[in-house]
Amino acid sequence: MIYLDNSATTKPYAEALDTHRTVSEQFFANPSSLHKLGGKSEALLSRSRELAASLLGVDKKEIVFTSGGTEGNNLAIKGAALAYRRRGRHLITTSVEHASALNAFRQLEKLGFEVTYLPVDHEGRVSFKDFIQAYRDDTILVSIMHVNNEVGTIQPIREIGEFLKTHPTTVFHVDHVQGFAKVPLRLAESSIDLCTISGHKFHGPKGTGILYVRSGALLSPLFSGGGQESQRRSGTENLPGICGMVKALRMTLEREKEGILHLTALQNKLRDGLSQIGGAVIHTPRTGSAPHIVNVSLEGIKSEVLVHALEENDIFVSTKSACSSKDSGASSVLLAMGVPENEAEEAIRISTAFETTPEEIDAFLSALSVHTRQLKRVMG
Amino acid sequence: MIYLDNSATTKPYAEALDTHRTVSEQFFANPSSLHKLGGKSEALLSRSRELAASLLGVDKKEIVFTSGGTEGNNLAIKGAALAYRRRGRHLITTSVEHASALNAFRQLEKLGFEVTYLPVDHEGRVSFKDFIQAYRDDTILVSIMHVNNEVGTIQPIREIGEFLKTHPTTVFHVDHVQGFAKVPLRLAESSIDLCTISGHKFHGPKGTGILYVRSGALLSPLFSGGGQESQRRSGTENLPGICGMVKALRMTLEREKEGILHLTALQNKLRDGLSQIGGAVIHTPRTGSAPHIVNVSLEGIKSEVLVHALEENDIFVSTKSACSSKDSGASSVLLAMGVPENEAEEAIRISTAFETTPEEIDAFLSALSVHTRQLKRVMG
Repeated sequence: MIYLDNSATTKPYAEALDTHRTVSEQFFANPSSLHKLGGKSEALLSRSRELAASLLGVDKKEIVFTSGGTEGNNLAIKGAALAYRRRGRHLITTSVEHASALNAFRQLEKLGFEVTYLPVDHEGRVSFKDFIQAYRDDTILVSIMHVNNEVGTIQPIREIGEFLKTHPTTVFHVDHVQGFAKVPLRLAESSIDLCTISGHKFHGPKGTGILYVRSGALLSPLFSGGGQESQRRSGTENLPGICGMVKALRMTLEREKEGILHLTALQNKLRDGLSQIGGAVIHTPRTGSAPHIVNVSLEGIKSEVLVHALEENDIFVSTKSACSSKDSGASSVLLAMGVPENEAEEAIRISTAFETTPEEIDAFLSALSVHTRQLKRVMG
Repeated sequence: MIYLDNSATTKPYAEALDTHRTVSEQFFANPSSLHKLGGKSEALLSRSRELAASLLGVDKKEIVFTSGGTEGNNLAIKGAALAYRRRGRHLITTSVEHASALNAFRQLEKLGFEVTYLPVDHEGRVSFKDFIQAYRDDTILVSIMHVNNEVGTIQPIREIGEFLKTHPTTVFHVDHVQGFAKVPLRLAESSIDLCTISGHKFHGPKGTGILYVRSGALLSPLFSGGGQESQRRSGTENLPGICGMVKALRMTLEREKEGILHLTALQNKLRDGLSQIGGAVIHTPRTGSAPHIVNVSLEGIKSEVLVHALEENDIFVSTKSACSSKDSGASSVLLAMGVPENEAEEAIRISTAFETTPEEIDAFLSALSVHTRQLKRVMG
């Protein structure tokens, strides 16, 4: 199997699953229970939080364990908007966010908030100029993804963050789900207040994630209740999931540097190979993009057809974002970039992981070359 | 180890963990991915949903997989209140709900909703009369727990449900987290619109749960995004967790009948034994309560002291609900029942599971007897 859909989800590390199992069996007590079994669970939770914080270079009080990226984005966006609603009603995001951010904003509009969706250029990038034009005195939240999940474009979050450093009445959220361990981000030195990451995107167990919440940033919780996670996310902690995720976090960050070099080499190989396939148009910008995503249209071949053709070789790529892959129509991200509709309907996303080998890329390219020739013949 | 804190959390079944592992390894693809690996995950998700629905006697479209009881309660309460806010602003609940329900209502009050918290009698039960008095034309949501998590009292949800059958403009939510597989509830025949259960309370993996949502009931989602769970709960599905939970659901329900008889026998044994210990006052009502919880005060001995004393014998019980067990002060449930404060501060909760043996109850009773005598001597 050649799995090139790592932006949708990754294969969990065996070590992360081992940890999940061990913790499920040996630390099953509720960390909130007063007895010493609960105390053991609580101590393990606390060690996991410290480890996660130290790996991310933040304080342990700034870690909120969640059930994943969608929860993180929803908690950050709705939580901040509701917590600061007396300060203002204006929010800024982009037109190419993940559905979990976009639809959170749409819900907030129904509650009376005003949202500016920044447009993107032909590379899928928002401009700092547009951002400054949109920014108002009553802007309480800016939420921008670090790396686009469909094309890999890196957004100018540093520049925007620099500006927001001098505008402390605005909360800054970054959806770092696709950027994590691909395009490093130093949270502590940034002006980011809230940052979402998702466990299953870096080989952790499904149903896990972290929302970084800078000290002092307020959130109206989505889950109120027993007050876990310092009142920001109530509910009995999924300790096996947390420990499994932190294990994967450590394993991933230990390999981050070489991993990114490896991904970059694979991406170059992919670009070279794709350039030799007739009718291939790469949408992922050559500079200012993440190393693990290549989005490419193959002229005259609908993405679905290609995805299913490659399956025959046990090769797995995606059309657009997994969430929306069953909706009909072209990728809204590519359309926002100005890609013509027919071309957008021919786009596939190839997304790699640290484990992907050059041989797998070769095998993918050769299968793609065969399929595109055959399919064009059939369709021509 | 004698684990008598099953209302806080249960030890997961090995089979449920096996399922979690197998699914994590073999069905790791995103169910939303278009390729056949995603299709395999999607098919498994669909089979799990069908199985859960058939075990609960409901339709598969009525199953929403969540991350647990706190999410279920918050999604039900806030989701229904926000979805029906144009119809009315009045909500009814009880003063003895779990924190995840109570605090959701407090948050809704801040958003302009009006909430009636029904009082309880000395057994911890709300009265139908009080409910009828509180009910108004603009009551859009009634949320009542089935079984109280601290004392085990069963609430008159059948009677209230009968009334609400003829008042279809009110949504009826039942927190069934403590009642599930202890006090059976036939959802299909009831007038319950929303019902919360939690995986880790019946030996499933942590971080899992189900919210039953009757066909036609609307919810404003807490997690908007990719539209998973029929738009009611977006986010990449925690398929290993879901499958592990459904496994535990099946195993639990297969044993439900004999299990409940077994729990009842254990509870009788506990009551008999406790009645022979001087100064024991049982708060759990003899009739109209769940079979797995006994809440008892031991005169003159603070609950924390007793919990830690029993630990020495490797016996684990709790003080009040796990969530609030680290807050100082007496149980708010016992206080609402009119139990004097000093007596409430002496209460412990013993909660059993199908696996608990009569021998374990004997060992607990004998350790309790020794400790109460010793502690009274020390304190006296």
